[in-house]
Amino acid sequence: MNPFTLTHQNKNSKARLGKLVTARGEIDTPCFMPVGTQGTVKALSPAELEESGAQIVLSNAYHLFLRPTTEVIKKAGGLHNFISWQKPILTDSGGYQIFSLALLRKVNDEGVEFQSHIDGTKHFLTPEEVIQIQKDLGSDILMPLDECVHYPCAKDYAERAMRRTVDWAKRSKMAHGSCLPAGRAWLPPQYMADPPRFLAGMAHGRLLFGIVQGATYEDLRKVCTQALIEIDFDGYAVGGVSVGEPRNLRYNIVNFVSGLLPQDKPRYLMGVGMPEDIIEAVELGMDMFDCVVPTRYGRNGTAFTSVGKLTIRNSPYIEDFRPLDQICSCYTCKNFSRAYLRHLFNTDEILGLRLVSLHNIHFYLELMRQIREEIRQDRFAEFKKEFLSRYLNEEEYAY
Amino acid sequence: MNPFTLTHQNKNSKARLGKLVTARGEIDTPCFMPVGTQGTVKALSPAELEESGAQIVLSNAYHLFLRPTTEVIKKAGGLHNFISWQKPILTDSGGYQIFSLALLRKVNDEGVEFQSHIDGTKHFLTPEEVIQIQKDLGSDILMPLDECVHYPCAKDYAERAMRRTVDWAKRSKMAHGSCLPAGRAWLPPQYMADPPRFLAGMAHGRLLFGIVQGATYEDLRKVCTQALIEIDFDGYAVGGVSVGEPRNLRYNIVNFVSGLLPQDKPRYLMGVGMPEDIIEAVELGMDMFDCVVPTRYGRNGTAFTSVGKLTIRNSPYIEDFRPLDQICSCYTCKNFSRAYLRHLFNTDEILGLRLVSLHNIHFYLELMRQIREEIRQDRFAEFKKEFLSRYLNEEEYAY
Repeated sequence: MNPFTLTHQNKNSKARLGKLVTARGEIDTPCFMPVGTQGTVKALSPAELEESGAQIVLSNAYHLFLRPTTEVIKKAGGLHNFISWQKPILTDSGGYQIFSLALLRKVNDEGVEFQSHIDGTKHFLTPEEVIQIQKDLGSDILMPLDECVHYPCAKDYAERAMRRTVDWAKRSKMAHGSCLPAGRAWLPPQYMADPPRFLAGMAHGRLLFGIVQGATYEDLRKVCTQALIEIDFDGYAVGGVSVGEPRNLRYNIVNFVSGLLPQDKPRYLMGVGMPEDIIEAVELGMDMFDCVVPTRYGRNGTAFTSVGKLTIRNSPYIEDFRPLDQICSCYTCKNFSRAYLRHLFNTDEILGLRLVSLHNIHFYLELMRQIREEIRQDRFAEFKKEFLSRYLNEEEYAY
Repeated sequence: MNPFTLTHQNKNSKARLGKLVTARGEIDTPCFMPVGTQGTVKALSPAELEESGAQIVLSNAYHLFLRPTTEVIKKAGGLHNFISWQKPILTDSGGYQIFSLALLRKVNDEGVEFQSHIDGTKHFLTPEEVIQIQKDLGSDILMPLDECVHYPCAKDYAERAMRRTVDWAKRSKMAHGSCLPAGRAWLPPQYMADPPRFLAGMAHGRLLFGIVQGATYEDLRKVCTQALIEIDFDGYAVGGVSVGEPRNLRYNIVNFVSGLLPQDKPRYLMGVGMPEDIIEAVELGMDMFDCVVPTRYGRNGTAFTSVGKLTIRNSPYIEDFRPLDQICSCYTCKNFSRAYLRHLFNTDEILGLRLVSLHNIHFYLELMRQIREEIRQDRFAEFKKEFLSRYLNEEEYAY
């Protein structure tokens, strides 16, 4: 059974509407996944995420493996119980983190050796072990270990990394298929009565995505995409973007890969991005997004609004008693003024970064709701134009 | 009309039950006031305070006068609107802060000159101006400017400070009585229709307390208390405690002053304290308390529980999947384990300090609810014994 249903294809663009079913709930696409790297979306509570309408959050196997360790989370009854979030969780494999954060990394065909960026302890992980970690966490959508390269990257290096990524993807698929859930403790209550039927129907209830690599080289991207499609995954992610490449190069690659992917599987653009990037990628046929920007900017006092970004520390806001965004319905905008938020940032009060992070997550999720509505009504192109003309209007931004 | 009603006097101790009526709501005493020095109870939202059952919060005129300034808050429609808290607010005058935080302080009979602890700007404030600031903020309970001395303090110095405090209290009372509310913008909607009647009934809807000083000298405390009673305030605060004196000396002074105060006025013990201190002071007849401890400890990862303080970073909690306090019903205890909270503190995640601060505030407010219930049932002495034997049990604390 394919857990993804394409419910509507926009008439004038590749933008599409879909529904992804996991054991812990449905996800309407295009969707944004708030990032909870270490098992918490920074500064926010699970209750706030739920009220904001989040249907899925992302967490990171590499970080959780190191702290508090997979063992602890397994004993807690899985990541959902540990962090008190009962809706779907996608776990990134840690490939990107191992290749960007970890120390003294040594990669061979077998797997990757690295030193923890926290305490320097040495670890060796194979693709199979990375799948097992995510199973132990009880993740709903698993990502295989991949080799992520930076921009720019020489072609021969990019090709080696891509071929290794495909090989690891194959091994991950086998590892994913070969294990029944340990103790089935992670199964949601409604399925506990009849686990075998549930397992047959849902491929263990856990989805596994493939990650397309190949840097900025179309031929490499093509080889990788076709190889992954042959292995057959529940969804496909475009990796190795948002790693320093120019924006137009990114759009080219996304557009190119999107054209190769099957219509009936979800497409996840990893680590993207700013509101304008997401809109652009939706138009190119991408379905799923994640990015630390809404919470990172929130902690620095930058709010996303319908008329652009707003830097709350700026002096024009001293006596500005309007909400961050006059058309926003989040808790922050319903209750607090720019003047108060500015005061909170000026006095280093935690409530300030909480409230702006909350607003930003609400802004992103509301943007996705609106994108879905506009696709449904075949109005996406007009919406994109209207949104960007307001959002990128420097004059309005300044006020 | 006296806004305070003594509803029950405990049979075997001075502990008492009361109700204090302000324009923005009633406060059941004995009560604990969460401290929002700069217009926010650190790390918590007003919604969380309300859900925890807070009936009043405390803020600080000195801090708000400096940042964001009284002017800004006045323009925002008062402090309640600015911080989005519609229940009562007590504002401390800033006396304590001027004498502990400010630089180059010069005090004379007219008022106090000081330099801002933030930017070094010079200010001179009279008792009348301090009342006006609190009126501009729209505070429900105002505290007069006083001269707070440290421990230990020579008697002649303590006496001068006490006599100045009485003189300033007199001037504050006159300033408080002489002004009608500016524009009445701060009046709650239900009173807007008939402000004169409201004003007559509620002494402008704002209460003014007197602050008893006199350091650790009983004769000075007596002179001060009698002088303040003669001026006649809506309530009486015991100031100059929790400034470094030994605990038994503090209890002596509190007990002594409590014995001199009128039965029909609320009694506020400023800056106190730990749970055991509050219980002790309730037994001596005190009604109102404030302290930064629950949120300050919360930010450092120390939780108050029914079996004592718990330091969440300690290693026994790595795999401890029980809530902070097994008999607590707060959001934190209903959803998260010690192991998860420890992980959040270990990874410097903001959610950790949010959740422990929330639990601690809930613990304090729940303690006060229980104290009131026990007084009502004339069981306070037994409760005190039971609570302290569990709370101070070192063996249970350690686990």
